[in-house]
Amino acid sequence: MFFLHADTAMSPKITGELLRQLRQAMKNCKFFSEPIQAYIVPSGDAHQSEYIAPCDCRREFICGFNGSAGTAIVTEQHAAMWTDGRYFLQASQQMDNNWTLMKMGLKQTPSQEDWLISILPENSKVGVDPWIIAADQWKNMSRALTSAGHSLVAVQDNLIDAVWMDRPERPSTQLRTLGLEYTGISWQDKITALRAKMTKRKLTWFVATALDEIAWLFNLRGADIEYNPVFFAYAIVGMNTIRLFVDLKRLSDPALREHLQLDSPSKPELSIRTFPYESVYTELQAICAAHSPKDRVWICDKASCALTQVIPKANRSPTPYTPLCLAKAVKNAAEIRGMKVAHIKDAVALCELFAWLEKEVFSLYTFRSIGGSTRFLHQQKDFVGLSFPTISSVGPNGAIIHYRPLPETNRTLSMNEVYLIDSGAQYVDGTTDVTRTMHFGTPSAFEKECFTYVLKGHIAVSAAVFPNGTKGHLLDSFARAALWESGLDYLHGTGHGVGCFLNVHEGPCGISYKTFADEPLEAGMIVSDEPGYYEDGSFGIRIENVVLVVPAKTKYNYRNRGSLTFEPLTLVPIQVKMMSIELLTQKERDWVNDYNRTCRDVIGAEMERQGRKEGLEWLIRETQPIV
Amino acid sequence: MFFLHADTAMSPKITGELLRQLRQAMKNCKFFSEPIQAYIVPSGDAHQSEYIAPCDCRREFICGFNGSAGTAIVTEQHAAMWTDGRYFLQASQQMDNNWTLMKMGLKQTPSQEDWLISILPENSKVGVDPWIIAADQWKNMSRALTSAGHSLVAVQDNLIDAVWMDRPERPSTQLRTLGLEYTGISWQDKITALRAKMTKRKLTWFVATALDEIAWLFNLRGADIEYNPVFFAYAIVGMNTIRLFVDLKRLSDPALREHLQLDSPSKPELSIRTFPYESVYTELQAICAAHSPKDRVWICDKASCALTQVIPKANRSPTPYTPLCLAKAVKNAAEIRGMKVAHIKDAVALCELFAWLEKEVFSLYTFRSIGGSTRFLHQQKDFVGLSFPTISSVGPNGAIIHYRPLPETNRTLSMNEVYLIDSGAQYVDGTTDVTRTMHFGTPSAFEKECFTYVLKGHIAVSAAVFPNGTKGHLLDSFARAALWESGLDYLHGTGHGVGCFLNVHEGPCGISYKTFADEPLEAGMIVSDEPGYYEDGSFGIRIENVVLVVPAKTKYNYRNRGSLTFEPLTLVPIQVKMMSIELLTQKERDWVNDYNRTCRDVIGAEMERQGRKEGLEWLIRETQPIV
Repeated sequence: MFFLHADTAMSPKITGELLRQLRQAMKNCKFFSEPIQAYIVPSGDAHQSEYIAPCDCRREFICGFNGSAGTAIVTEQHAAMWTDGRYFLQASQQMDNNWTLMKMGLKQTPSQEDWLISILPENSKVGVDPWIIAADQWKNMSRALTSAGHSLVAVQDNLIDAVWMDRPERPSTQLRTLGLEYTGISWQDKITALRAKMTKRKLTWFVATALDEIAWLFNLRGADIEYNPVFFAYAIVGMNTIRLFVDLKRLSDPALREHLQLDSPSKPELSIRTFPYESVYTELQAICAAHSPKDRVWICDKASCALTQVIPKANRSPTPYTPLCLAKAVKNAAEIRGMKVAHIKDAVALCELFAWLEKEVFSLYTFRSIGGSTRFLHQQKDFVGLSFPTISSVGPNGAIIHYRPLPETNRTLSMNEVYLIDSGAQYVDGTTDVTRTMHFGTPSAFEKECFTYVLKGHIAVSAAVFPNGTKGHLLDSFARAALWESGLDYLHGTGHGVGCFLNVHEGPCGISYKTFADEPLEAGMIVSDEPGYYEDGSFGIRIENVVLVVPAKTKYNYRNRGSLTFEPLTLVPIQVKMMSIELLTQKERDWVNDYNRTCRDVIGAEMERQGRKEGLEWLIRETQPIV
Repeated sequence: MFFLHADTAMSPKITGELLRQLRQAMKNCKFFSEPIQAYIVPSGDAHQSEYIAPCDCRREFICGFNGSAGTAIVTEQHAAMWTDGRYFLQASQQMDNNWTLMKMGLKQTPSQEDWLISILPENSKVGVDPWIIAADQWKNMSRALTSAGHSLVAVQDNLIDAVWMDRPERPSTQLRTLGLEYTGISWQDKITALRAKMTKRKLTWFVATALDEIAWLFNLRGADIEYNPVFFAYAIVGMNTIRLFVDLKRLSDPALREHLQLDSPSKPELSIRTFPYESVYTELQAICAAHSPKDRVWICDKASCALTQVIPKANRSPTPYTPLCLAKAVKNAAEIRGMKVAHIKDAVALCELFAWLEKEVFSLYTFRSIGGSTRFLHQQKDFVGLSFPTISSVGPNGAIIHYRPLPETNRTLSMNEVYLIDSGAQYVDGTTDVTRTMHFGTPSAFEKECFTYVLKGHIAVSAAVFPNGTKGHLLDSFARAALWESGLDYLHGTGHGVGCFLNVHEGPCGISYKTFADEPLEAGMIVSDEPGYYEDGSFGIRIENVVLVVPAKTKYNYRNRGSLTFEPLTLVPIQVKMMSIELLTQKERDWVNDYNRTCRDVIGAEMERQGRKEGLEWLIRETQPIV
């Protein structure tokens, strides 16, 4: 699954009155010394999370569009919302006529900066909440506006909150501790490794703001944000101190206190001082005030502008990826073991689901009424929940890249249409994310042709051999070459990093034409491989595996650099019925047969162990080799 | 040819005394108010030219290394020089023990910033000549040094010049005017188009600093820099004024004065005011002083730091690629026609050369003694000179990516070694650049295997079909996939933009894993396609064509984006003897046969017209189809 968020309500939100109130607030000098002519509503929270809690869904509140990516800008006359190709259809259905949809990635679409510059009166002020805009975005936007005679101003009170009457509270769920059998490394060792990197870079403080990095660092998980096992917190690590900012009510559980050694730290430098979540600003201010002028603070350049600007510029050391992000991306042996176990369980549940769907396709059940993909997932050991809302779509809904079944657009399963399911789950031992496209009847020649191009792309990435040090974005075109040759393409990236019982999307690696600042792929990293093709109004195709970066054996070894390739962790058969075999090379046919046989061997054994006869029969039928 | 410059002297330059003098100058407060602890010597001139005039070869002067890319840094204790994979061998041979070679692109090699930070005493000052460092480089370096407590300072007097006793004078060659039959567009129309873009962006001034952009704009050519038909100049274009800064002695030729309408401009806004080359600084200062505060000046972010900083920051509108660079890259019908004609003539000369070499291989002539590649090139109509020094190498010299034959390392042509020639020429109608790798005897199995992987990469790029709007860097991996599969690679990009009777390397497009800021490929752009493989100590392989971006017909047309592909302009046969046919797919064999047949048809016809029997026989023999 490639970046997605929340339910897809298909009737537009009526926003006329809300916009009127927001524009009123923009003129209200209670919020800023002078009126502002435009207000930017980014989609993130104060941690630049991709998935956000209901209290942070401000962009959705103001415009109705609830995809994972999008920025709304409201001026006195206009309201516009930028999103990318995954969401063009969805956004156009969710927003009313007050809004202009800005289709990012198309040549004719202006950037937010260019658009603002083209419509604003001279010397305009553009406002934004500094807590929910990243420092690097602030900088770029500010520079562009300044160069055109305007200015970007930080509006401390969020103007959406000011007009949002029934805004939900910030969640504070129970925290879960993870033992070494899952994490492989204790939080104390992670702190020590972090400090070693700080010493090497001559940095004295590290500020952690990304929720998954904080969860990973302390070997804790929460449930504050749906699908992402994280909790609202900040952390500031010095060479001898550790400060954790979190709702203090959460810290009463004795097992948790023991895990964090809150009452009896083993060493003073591993003693955690806890503070209320909200006090991070004042505490960081105090640290900076007590600073020696040479102290340097490491902070992600994607951290909020508000928190970044607390640190005097001379003491700031911004980094595109934090040391935690980089360490977290390379999974250790315990994490890889866990991810493999999770993917086996996940495949068992999916095969069961498919066997069941195939049988029930005639009874016209809707996907929701059958309990969705959790029907079988929850039977698996250590299942925690979904890692994103399941995408289960038939026919034309599949062309809405992140369609989610809803009563008003539900189509019943049918023998005559392409079925696409993108499902992911959280288990205590790992996170999964898999997409399969199938047909329960007879696919058309065009559907098969497109599926086969997508499959060729999937294989081209999965089987690619590349030198150590290669960045993932250099593999993106492999996934597209077969589609391009026929004049086809898909408007999303090919792969994203996957966390281990953490966020289903994580940096710093990925496979996308859009990124360049991705870090080189390394053995132990885990990414998705998910090319697709979407024919508006007809069908959607995507084939997604989660794959592990592993060393590759090659005939030669140029400059002793070593080579890498991918090992699929996802082991769910790819439907042969959807393939135009004649379009596959012998190598590609061999890959399909090898892959489906591995699914049969590994998942079959687990199904037998679990006594799941129906799924096993389906699995064996679906993994017959092609010739 | 992928970025290269100047002769390869193979014995190291003795630099001890020079470094002593430079370090003396670094402590001499005549040049700066306080001593500096490090001095950076970039490789460029004040126009950030890739090829530079002898008077600007300061980095070569101080360290001995004369490759096209490299930066030297001298501190009180150390002297280090950064260059990339194309030049590792050459640099190590040209520099003495006073210098440390910093191999860029290898993981263990520190960046210039990191290295400086690791060795400098606290609060150090690092000096650089602001005229020969680009504004964007200055900014990055300054930011990195500042964040570590050091500072970057502009040293107005160049310290290399201060110790360079016999520094040559700046050239001032005769200017050549180009008519519409070559340029397709008059300089007046180019100015008008530029002003339209300025209006669209609300910019009032454009400062042209790149020599090829100025030559292109005025439809003039010079010979100030070897291989590049450019001349030292600056231009400042306002909405009603045109200022040209050039050695005024050059403007006496009546045809030139007529071309530029210096004495009788057709319209006042197309009247060119001429100024001495050196007065650009003061004139730009005067323009900025007379500025309204809203005036905005368009300047390339690669322009010199010195000139950029004349413009107040609020009025500066830096751009990665200037409108001239973008317009110049898309060749018009007259330019494409010229490039095609030039490549046909070039191919005739090369085929003649190969036929002759093959015959003479036993007579042990050295390449230089036969007159090099110009032996046949100069017989072609409108030949002006080489577009870069011919690379002609045998066996192990081929592994020096930009080897150039010199008496001390010359190896005679042999039946037993791989021969690589990379040759390019300037014709009045176009610029060429071609590399062929061949064997006059029997290549080894390994040589053939490597050649075939390189060929597969060349074909993969040349035959690639991709959507309109695709950036060239996304095609780079296609050139490497076959090599990667066997654990091989090459440490240079795959392609560069090519000018039309202009620089053989030009932006803004290219095919390289190293760039991300390249502009999307468009029909009419011209780039090279030149994957390679270099086995240190044994042989080098590269297959290079210049290719034109053309629209492609595809089965489908997703979102009406249209597709592109490449049409080879270079038409020199690729040697079948070097291929391991069994490693080629049927599609690749068809490509080779189609390509070689086109060479035979097009070049054969021209050879017949020119009555070149020997070359024709060779051509026909070398273009037999493979089966």
